[in-house]
Amino acid sequence: MDQELINQAEGALLDLNGVFYVDETLAPGAREAVAALRAANLPRLYLTNTTTRNLDSLYRMLRDLGLPAEKSEILSPPQAAVLYLRTLGKPRCHLLLREELKKDFAEFPVSHVNPDVVVIGDIGDRWNHAIMNQAFQMVMYGAKLVALHKGRFWQVDNELRLDIGAYVAGLEYAAGHEAIIIGKPSPDFFRMALQSLGTSAEKTVMFGDDIEMDVGGAQRVGMKGVLVKTGKYRPEQEVLSSVRPDGFLDSIGDLPRLLEGRGR
Amino acid sequence: MDQELINQAEGALLDLNGVFYVDETLAPGAREAVAALRAANLPRLYLTNTTTRNLDSLYRMLRDLGLPAEKSEILSPPQAAVLYLRTLGKPRCHLLLREELKKDFAEFPVSHVNPDVVVIGDIGDRWNHAIMNQAFQMVMYGAKLVALHKGRFWQVDNELRLDIGAYVAGLEYAAGHEAIIIGKPSPDFFRMALQSLGTSAEKTVMFGDDIEMDVGGAQRVGMKGVLVKTGKYRPEQEVLSSVRPDGFLDSIGDLPRLLEGRGR
Repeated sequence: MDQELINQAEGALLDLNGVFYVDETLAPGAREAVAALRAANLPRLYLTNTTTRNLDSLYRMLRDLGLPAEKSEILSPPQAAVLYLRTLGKPRCHLLLREELKKDFAEFPVSHVNPDVVVIGDIGDRWNHAIMNQAFQMVMYGAKLVALHKGRFWQVDNELRLDIGAYVAGLEYAAGHEAIIIGKPSPDFFRMALQSLGTSAEKTVMFGDDIEMDVGGAQRVGMKGVLVKTGKYRPEQEVLSSVRPDGFLDSIGDLPRLLEGRGR
Repeated sequence: MDQELINQAEGALLDLNGVFYVDETLAPGAREAVAALRAANLPRLYLTNTTTRNLDSLYRMLRDLGLPAEKSEILSPPQAAVLYLRTLGKPRCHLLLREELKKDFAEFPVSHVNPDVVVIGDIGDRWNHAIMNQAFQMVMYGAKLVALHKGRFWQVDNELRLDIGAYVAGLEYAAGHEAIIIGKPSPDFFRMALQSLGTSAEKTVMFGDDIEMDVGGAQRVGMKGVLVKTGKYRPEQEVLSSVRPDGFLDSIGDLPRLLEGRGR
């Protein structure tokens, strides 16, 4: 990728899964990349669509993987969702979330009868017709549909797996009601990240393996987007997409060399 | 509705569920409507998106409800799907269908590994993540997605229930691949019905309770569409839809009076 892009960067947004690790296994060069980012003193924020862990759990996982980060350097959809829900007052929520994550939403009253909001996150393999039909009826009776993200699939062990976007899209179609998408590629989510970094959009670079969510999402708010060719990256998606990344990395392991060039 | 529309009609397409019966309970005036259609000698075809029964079973149900029809007067998506699949040669199929319906697809080899086609029909309450993920992966590996219909919901006991369209839309979104929709509102399905009736589009009237599927679908191939205000009909859907029905019936029980006016 273009050395100039890195030279001019004043901040970095970093996708996690597929870039720094895949399926909780460290990506080659990931530790060195983090060390180089620290050494370069470049403000950075991990911007992840992970909805299976809360902030504490993400923090511990990064530490255990040898990728130390402050909690203030991590932004994930559950945190942003809580901020969004607060703007609605004290909405009664129906939470399609893992138990661990439900704790982060404890300030909102739970309701399974005519809730104000249906929050869709990750419930792993538990999706079934009863859950879908119940959420559908709630939305038909007036609940807002709030989705932590609308990812199409992710990659595990060289296999593509269906992500929650299928269920979000299915409910949107059936209820004729567009969901509020919290995570990437939502512009609000990227703007929240920018505010946390304190950098300007045009001098902030997003690094991610998803051409639409990471690269397209970043570009739509005026940032630069770099496609990292690991994780769920597939050459054919690049061909099919209308998004044109500002740069490419074969892996995050290539970042230290580029950051080194920055000083010169 | 306009008497003129009925006077000029040379053929009638009739939705079943929500118009002639709701949840297998006969609608008031349904028998009289069938008798009046016969007496008027108006060519007619039941055009239904039902995917829970095969032709034999539909035929027996109509007979048992006192709505006698020839088998040649019934067209449902499974019949049309078999005709479509034949145009592909002998595709290897993964069938998401009820056991009863699978028999109607017996001519096609079944494959759960890299099938040529994933056929989505009704599997009742059995939808779950394993089924969705498997279908998604098949489509990602090149299988065509063929859906018997893409209905959003239907009505049972005054309750709206999620229909298979949610799962079709979800798979389309995740796989980035548009499904081939067999049933209403597919223009091919309406044209097949017209061919069976032997009438011209502009003198054929579709009667149904779904403003998009029945009325909109019929109008798109040049037919007239009459909205019957029973079954899943809700006034708000009429307001939200861009479809403008050519006529309205409070119930199918109003048809005899209109057909009587025809002779005059």
